[in-house]
Amino acid sequence: MASPPEAGRLSLNTATVRAQWSLAQAINGCARHGIRGVAPWRDKLAEMGLKRAAAAIRAHGLTVTGLCRGGFFTAEGWRDDNLRAIEEAHELGARCLVLVAGGLPPGSRDLGLSREAIREGIAAILPEARKAGVPLAIEPLHPMQAADRACINTLEQALDLCDLFGEGIGVAVDVYHVWWDPKLAQQIERAGKDRILAYHICDWLVPTRDTLNDRGMMGDGVIDLPRIRSWVEAAGYAGFHEVEIFSERDWWRRDPDEVLRTARERHARCC
Amino acid sequence: MASPPEAGRLSLNTATVRAQWSLAQAINGCARHGIRGVAPWRDKLAEMGLKRAAAAIRAHGLTVTGLCRGGFFTAEGWRDDNLRAIEEAHELGARCLVLVAGGLPPGSRDLGLSREAIREGIAAILPEARKAGVPLAIEPLHPMQAADRACINTLEQALDLCDLFGEGIGVAVDVYHVWWDPKLAQQIERAGKDRILAYHICDWLVPTRDTLNDRGMMGDGVIDLPRIRSWVEAAGYAGFHEVEIFSERDWWRRDPDEVLRTARERHARCC
Repeated sequence: MASPPEAGRLSLNTATVRAQWSLAQAINGCARHGIRGVAPWRDKLAEMGLKRAAAAIRAHGLTVTGLCRGGFFTAEGWRDDNLRAIEEAHELGARCLVLVAGGLPPGSRDLGLSREAIREGIAAILPEARKAGVPLAIEPLHPMQAADRACINTLEQALDLCDLFGEGIGVAVDVYHVWWDPKLAQQIERAGKDRILAYHICDWLVPTRDTLNDRGMMGDGVIDLPRIRSWVEAAGYAGFHEVEIFSERDWWRRDPDEVLRTARERHARCC
Repeated sequence: MASPPEAGRLSLNTATVRAQWSLAQAINGCARHGIRGVAPWRDKLAEMGLKRAAAAIRAHGLTVTGLCRGGFFTAEGWRDDNLRAIEEAHELGARCLVLVAGGLPPGSRDLGLSREAIREGIAAILPEARKAGVPLAIEPLHPMQAADRACINTLEQALDLCDLFGEGIGVAVDVYHVWWDPKLAQQIERAGKDRILAYHICDWLVPTRDTLNDRGMMGDGVIDLPRIRSWVEAAGYAGFHEVEIFSERDWWRRDPDEVLRTARERHARCC
């Protein structure tokens, strides 16, 4: 199979095939399909074992475009969990540790308190991340996930946090979460080359039938992917395009080799 | 039944009982439950007939806290439809005509183009609204509805539009759409007394099972209603609190008298 010119910039976030494949299978799948980047999730990493995963990734010469995930600063045990995540990201040579900040704890309606906990949590782990040489990437999540997953919901808000901390922290720009934002172009420009640590792609389906697991393959929805890409590139980003699709009803039910073939083809054509 | 002190500020957006009641029944229901405001939708208004509805509303001394809806500037026929909506709002003495701006037309991925169409649409109808004495209330909709219903998605964006136009236009603040916004307090203050034309209440359920029709009754979700109310009141808003609940799985299946009783009780207790 001839490589399209774009193939070298594609990365696979392994959540895209999490229902079908172990991390070992996903790493092999990337190698088989000419995908040069991979972004593992930590549950699958634990299953495979950190050393074994790091060795397999190195053996195939893959770039780890991010480790998913740290964060959840509003949950019990956040400190130890984030310190472990930093070690794992270091061991894998990950370009960043993605932070899904955390939402409202059970019984809380206080967004301000959660946002304060997130700020304090980042302040607590950032020195360790710097020591380990692991950039932290705050991922603003779609406002529909504010209660349960992250109450950092716009790029502007994430960058305001970055401004507080300076070195060693930036953002993950996932089109699914930010495509609707009227300030998106402006805030991508503000982020700039040094703070765009990851660029995640997929598509927004109409209708969207689930607030978490109904993402679309690039080209099947309404996100203007070439335009958003042009903004991140104009800001100086020249890294990988990481496909990350949570899809209970569709892509998680398909043959994972078909998923990777389709992602490669759509990445070359629609992104 | 003794009126709680708050009851006088409650308004019923008739969508809350749209599955069970005609507009005539909803108007009678308001009167029966001591609810002093009503906000009709135009489909039900057309069924009842404008003159008959206006007479019934006057007979019960209800305040029309808004007419739902104008807008959809990205759809065919928007001009005539909005001009009719302005006439209807005038005839009902509505405090405002709520504008649901419109999303992406079929096949489009161009949010910028839709937002431009919305700006031009408002410019086209605003002179007629001013002549009729009908304030236009731009309602920013939750970002999860950007594609299908409105690509005006934050209060900041709506107020930037208002700034372009000056007199005769403001915003409808619906907690469901804006509760997650990190700039909410700031933008409510910016809106100020003169531009907060309506205040809509309900709740955000966790989990949310549908992006349109799974709103919760006040108190059943995670929105900090007293806090948001304190912000709109600090900005000078002293109008009605309009309960608007789209609820396919729950409230649309209940006895509508129970819905109104519950709304009244929750409004007094949780809002």
